Amino acid sequence: MERIFEARSVVIVGVSERPGNLGGYILQNLIAWEYQGRIYGVNPKGGEAFGYRLYPSVSDLPEPVDLGVIIVPAPAVPDIVDECGRKGITRLAIPAGGFEEFAGGGELRDALVAAARRHGIRFVGPNCLTVINAHTGLCLPFVPIPPELPRGCVSIVAQSGGIGLDFLARLKDENTGFAKFVSIGNKTDLDEVDYLEYLGRDPATEVICMYLEDVERGRALLETARSIKKPILLYKANVEPLTRESAQSHTAALANDDAVLDGALRQAGIKRVGRLAELAGYAKVFSLPPLRGNRVALVSPTGGILVLASDQCARRGFVFPPLPAALVEDIRSHLRAGVVNITNPVDLGDVHDAEARVYIVDRLMEQDFIDGVIMLLISRMASGEVSTGGIHGLRKNILPDLEALVDKHGKPLVFSLLATAEVRNNARRVVSLPIFDDAEEAVDAAAVLRDFSLRWAR
Amino acid sequence: MERIFEARSVVIVGVSERPGNLGGYILQNLIAWEYQGRIYGVNPKGGEAFGYRLYPSVSDLPEPVDLGVIIVPAPAVPDIVDECGRKGITRLAIPAGGFEEFAGGGELRDALVAAARRHGIRFVGPNCLTVINAHTGLCLPFVPIPPELPRGCVSIVAQSGGIGLDFLARLKDENTGFAKFVSIGNKTDLDEVDYLEYLGRDPATEVICMYLEDVERGRALLETARSIKKPILLYKANVEPLTRESAQSHTAALANDDAVLDGALRQAGIKRVGRLAELAGYAKVFSLPPLRGNRVALVSPTGGILVLASDQCARRGFVFPPLPAALVEDIRSHLRAGVVNITNPVDLGDVHDAEARVYIVDRLMEQDFIDGVIMLLISRMASGEVSTGGIHGLRKNILPDLEALVDKHGKPLVFSLLATAEVRNNARRVVSLPIFDDAEEAVDAAAVLRDFSLRWAR
Repeated sequence: MERIFEARSVVIVGVSERPGNLGGYILQNLIAWEYQGRIYGVNPKGGEAFGYRLYPSVSDLPEPVDLGVIIVPAPAVPDIVDECGRKGITRLAIPAGGFEEFAGGGELRDALVAAARRHGIRFVGPNCLTVINAHTGLCLPFVPIPPELPRGCVSIVAQSGGIGLDFLARLKDENTGFAKFVSIGNKTDLDEVDYLEYLGRDPATEVICMYLEDVERGRALLETARSIKKPILLYKANVEPLTRESAQSHTAALANDDAVLDGALRQAGIKRVGRLAELAGYAKVFSLPPLRGNRVALVSPTGGILVLASDQCARRGFVFPPLPAALVEDIRSHLRAGVVNITNPVDLGDVHDAEARVYIVDRLMEQDFIDGVIMLLISRMASGEVSTGGIHGLRKNILPDLEALVDKHGKPLVFSLLATAEVRNNARRVVSLPIFDDAEEAVDAAAVLRDFSLRWAR
Repeated sequence: MERIFEARSVVIVGVSERPGNLGGYILQNLIAWEYQGRIYGVNPKGGEAFGYRLYPSVSDLPEPVDLGVIIVPAPAVPDIVDECGRKGITRLAIPAGGFEEFAGGGELRDALVAAARRHGIRFVGPNCLTVINAHTGLCLPFVPIPPELPRGCVSIVAQSGGIGLDFLARLKDENTGFAKFVSIGNKTDLDEVDYLEYLGRDPATEVICMYLEDVERGRALLETARSIKKPILLYKANVEPLTRESAQSHTAALANDDAVLDGALRQAGIKRVGRLAELAGYAKVFSLPPLRGNRVALVSPTGGILVLASDQCARRGFVFPPLPAALVEDIRSHLRAGVVNITNPVDLGDVHDAEARVYIVDRLMEQDFIDGVIMLLISRMASGEVSTGGIHGLRKNILPDLEALVDKHGKPLVFSLLATAEVRNNARRVVSLPIFDDAEEAVDAAAVLRDFSLRWAR
């Protein structure tokens, strides 16, 4: 696995400068992502592409590279695999489609597997976007991947390239970076269990997100997950009978008994999500410190949002410890307005002073009986302005001060900013704290953070 | 009600140019929204504010205006109400807080009610942002409301001003306009049933969204809803015992038996939503023609999304009619690539030609056995580019052609665009077709559209 994801030399077999040449997109991705390893191209016609010399065949290469990328029509793949094996190339990424997902492709699949076995070759795919290592610039999809995607510690295993890319786009929107990406396709050789195992030990990966349409080695998946002390989030699709036919034509996936899977996943510490959007949402919450219990303070400058978030907290098993009289008195003495009724949930509606708001959150976070704070902000709608007050807004943007409290107390501050998308995006430029779009989503993410934190605390 | 929402003259009682004066914000909103009615201000000190003469008292006004807005401290409100009554002003909007939501405020509440009764006055509030009529510019909240919010046919009744404003921000993000807005606060006089009844007969309102924390006149609400042939979407918060205390301090709301309410709402044709984000999402789907049945074609250029959307369709009771051989042959003859396996759900993965994609959707929509099309697009991530192809994108933006098909066939085309927020926002500038962020959300919205369409078809 390391030789694939950390490859220091690659060859793209089937590359040219011709517009629409898929190998050309791969080479351009490597260039755009500033891949630091050695790059070779193979094309029977020779010549060069994007400044790289093209060798007429794999056997002409000056070295047995770490990783071969085979992007030729399916019928030609088995021979190329053989040639790679003879050259001493034992790791391959095979984006090409046209195997068992098409009628009559089963024989080609068998030929591919046989060729790989002959040489002890392990491979990614076929029929997929293969691999990205965001930190080394090894960016192998055959579609343009913008190099400005942020680098980080979230890795993704996707049984659909399109969904994998959508996940990267969502992470970008959330200002959250990724480490490794693998689109696993038909998983004829390496499968989700292999990738999960690898990401479990990969030091660059701290959160693992998976999109799967079928699971063949269920027991192995669960055992592997159980041994990994990193959050694992799974979107398992292809669960309805109606769906199975289209899934089968897509990646030859077979559906599994969903209810059985559901219970087993929970036991193995895998968080199952019900919507694609939740994958990115939950992934980003893990940039916060652990949430070591159920006891939260819920804080908001608008009562209405306290009400609905409080509902959601109750559904997710959170409790609101009452605030001791001494703490209430201390907070009161820092406020100008006298009318504030300070209970937990905390309504900051009448606290229009930025410093006082930060002070309240600071005091709440330092309490032993508070495991974390969920804060719900609403911005006034003035276009593009990052205001974090109540409906009136505050003069001062308190986000950086709030972010500092997370480090100070080593506890999470999970918060949502109800505002236009534009205002939220601006806020995401100011702080790296995860910012949720909805109060309900913030509470759900806090619960996921808590569940994983408690699992490892035991 | 008409005299409130369609008021042709208003007085703001308690207005000045002093920074932070809430009446000042109201006056500035009226100016920014280009309110066409007559505006008066009252301030005991006289003078003027933002170009408007201030009268020392309500009795000094030159006419009994349609609507009085009282933004003075709560203890002063009952006397002003009396004064308005004597002047012949019988409709009031009372944003001021400090009544029964605070300890000891019950007496003030009683005084307010008594004063109103003496003069046959009906009023909005207190303790709320009161009213906006987007089409007349009657914009009365005491916080700045950006006049660039789009005008449209969605109206909102919110028992929390903050949540009401959040809803307006979300509608703006969805490029969907609103007609009427009312933040109902303590609903001491007019309540959600009154507003619902009014919006039900209001010609400018085609979709009604409600956020409620309690329902006192449950039976009346249900009966009113049943008589209204417009989609009604409801977010009912304050359903968990843990929440009730904070809700009570917020708007003196009492929770109701949630399970009982749930069943009754469904029978009355009210769609209950579980998240705030769904309110705006579902509201926008009603700009499409009715979806008169369960039979849909599901179309996407990426297999993975077909799989998860197909799951979601099955959960929502949709079926995928098989395509007759003649139709398949016709479509095939319009495609260049021969490998496409044309079944419903339809995988456009190998159809890279823009015209062919539009042709396929056109042919699907014209079939009698198809009630509507759910289309799932994924954009390549090239920054800011509106591409609607598969992972490769298409040269031509097919959104306008797709939008034209909706008018042509009088059937809905519900679609989602999986992409970065930026790409989606650009797409929303190109077409007015509702565009969903997620495949699951698009399917859920299609189901809501179907449920209301079938309800009225019976």
